[in-house]
Amino acid sequence: MRIAFCGTGIMGRPMAIKLIEAGHELRLWNRTPEKASIPGGHIAASPAEAAREADVVWVCVSDTAAAERVLLDPAAGVLSAVRPGMIVADSSTISPRASREFAARFAERGAAFADCPVTGSKAGAEKGELIFIVGGEPEPVAKLQPLFAVMGKRVFHLGGNGMGLAAKLAMNLNIALIYEGFAEGLVLAEKSGIPVASMLEIISATMLRSGVVEYKGPWVERRDFSPNFPLRWMHKDIHLMLEHARELRVKLPALETVEEVYAVAGEEGMADLDYAATLTLLEKWAGIQV
Amino acid sequence: MRIAFCGTGIMGRPMAIKLIEAGHELRLWNRTPEKASIPGGHIAASPAEAAREADVVWVCVSDTAAAERVLLDPAAGVLSAVRPGMIVADSSTISPRASREFAARFAERGAAFADCPVTGSKAGAEKGELIFIVGGEPEPVAKLQPLFAVMGKRVFHLGGNGMGLAAKLAMNLNIALIYEGFAEGLVLAEKSGIPVASMLEIISATMLRSGVVEYKGPWVERRDFSPNFPLRWMHKDIHLMLEHARELRVKLPALETVEEVYAVAGEEGMADLDYAATLTLLEKWAGIQV
Repeated sequence: MRIAFCGTGIMGRPMAIKLIEAGHELRLWNRTPEKASIPGGHIAASPAEAAREADVVWVCVSDTAAAERVLLDPAAGVLSAVRPGMIVADSSTISPRASREFAARFAERGAAFADCPVTGSKAGAEKGELIFIVGGEPEPVAKLQPLFAVMGKRVFHLGGNGMGLAAKLAMNLNIALIYEGFAEGLVLAEKSGIPVASMLEIISATMLRSGVVEYKGPWVERRDFSPNFPLRWMHKDIHLMLEHARELRVKLPALETVEEVYAVAGEEGMADLDYAATLTLLEKWAGIQV
Repeated sequence: MRIAFCGTGIMGRPMAIKLIEAGHELRLWNRTPEKASIPGGHIAASPAEAAREADVVWVCVSDTAAAERVLLDPAAGVLSAVRPGMIVADSSTISPRASREFAARFAERGAAFADCPVTGSKAGAEKGELIFIVGGEPEPVAKLQPLFAVMGKRVFHLGGNGMGLAAKLAMNLNIALIYEGFAEGLVLAEKSGIPVASMLEIISATMLRSGVVEYKGPWVERRDFSPNFPLRWMHKDIHLMLEHARELRVKLPALETVEEVYAVAGEEGMADLDYAATLTLLEKWAGIQV
């Protein structure tokens, strides 16, 4: 299949590699062109050029504004090169409302659009074990299945356009609050004189255990807050959740409070650390010297 | 061993049964005397009477005030019958500061005191599979080990008096926030048109999985909010966490917000439902008709 891949960053690059390895013909575009170079792929000068001959255009960029530029830029965007029957799959985590608007713009030109955000981190992308959370019409989503199978281990198709993103935001809300509970519990335990290692042992032995703490716990114990999922990305996702909730008239009280924690953590210079570093802000507020 | 067991409620009763089955001689007291009747045990008219000949006094009551009455009531409390060498084990979830004060009162009379809150729910108590989270001096805690082994599968001894309770509060903080994240995520998903069953499937397939949602998810899917862990108990525990945090000068922003959710849920008549019913308050705020 001829595939345009726009956005070969932390997640996009290993995804594109998997597609090339599976024998697909890839045209690659990235904002920083050097990062688009992957053996077996052809570099394109713009999303439009990448898309020109493509059957499928895959997008994986950092936020709603970047997705809009890639998709809708009058001169260089994918839409300017669209052909009827083309399928655009967007794995960026962006606003569900914006994604539905993109889908409508492509539908006007006879092309299909699916929101396909992923979960599974960089390691999952490298192993081809991502989980795709998908919104879009049944027919194009069915045509994407062989590509999902190359890059991932599971696909949840939740409904029409925007539904994949709505589910992805609900998922990251769970992650943000599981971690916040872990961090607040840990600070209370630490100040009580209980070692981090003891709390981690208790958590893993009880119903408190979670995939989030299983993954983040060892990093926290080593005090290694180098970015796996940068704080600024989680903060961006929290804004998307709150914006989506506002549009739907949903009240998310704890998440609103957690947003404030991320805002302060960002202002205190932690934006490029892992979101796990929010713990250090709570420790600072509690006067804990680590 | 001669054991006094004070408080044979939802948790205490199956714990006392395990001790009787293991061959110990039990004198049982409960505020509602009918509930103290267990085959093989002897009913006592007061905590003092239960404790009079005991080597170990086990306490399992609902809150700090109840524990104080059972332990310190001048006429009927355990302290009035204390003998040097006696060990008091308190499995109530109460204030760590109050527990340390109780320990000091018993120490003055030559008796040891250990805070031994449990996790594992009623089902865990019935199977003898509780987990004990313990604070107290090494010597009495060592003497309690054979009794822990009869009622539980694991013991975490975290340090001196009050440390078991401090860890227990940090644990329940995790549970409250994991569930709040699940509930806020679910309301956002529901209002987006995503079925509860789909969110549960996604959660169990990803790093969002947790012991809490594994346990509560099926109840939520059935809309069964009958009490397993009543909302009023979790609300009481949240107050204990915030009080403990205030004493230690620890700031717990998300928990403070969650406390407001529980306060409103209680005022709206949900206090005797399971704490999982807080979901229905978020649904109501979002205008979701279930």
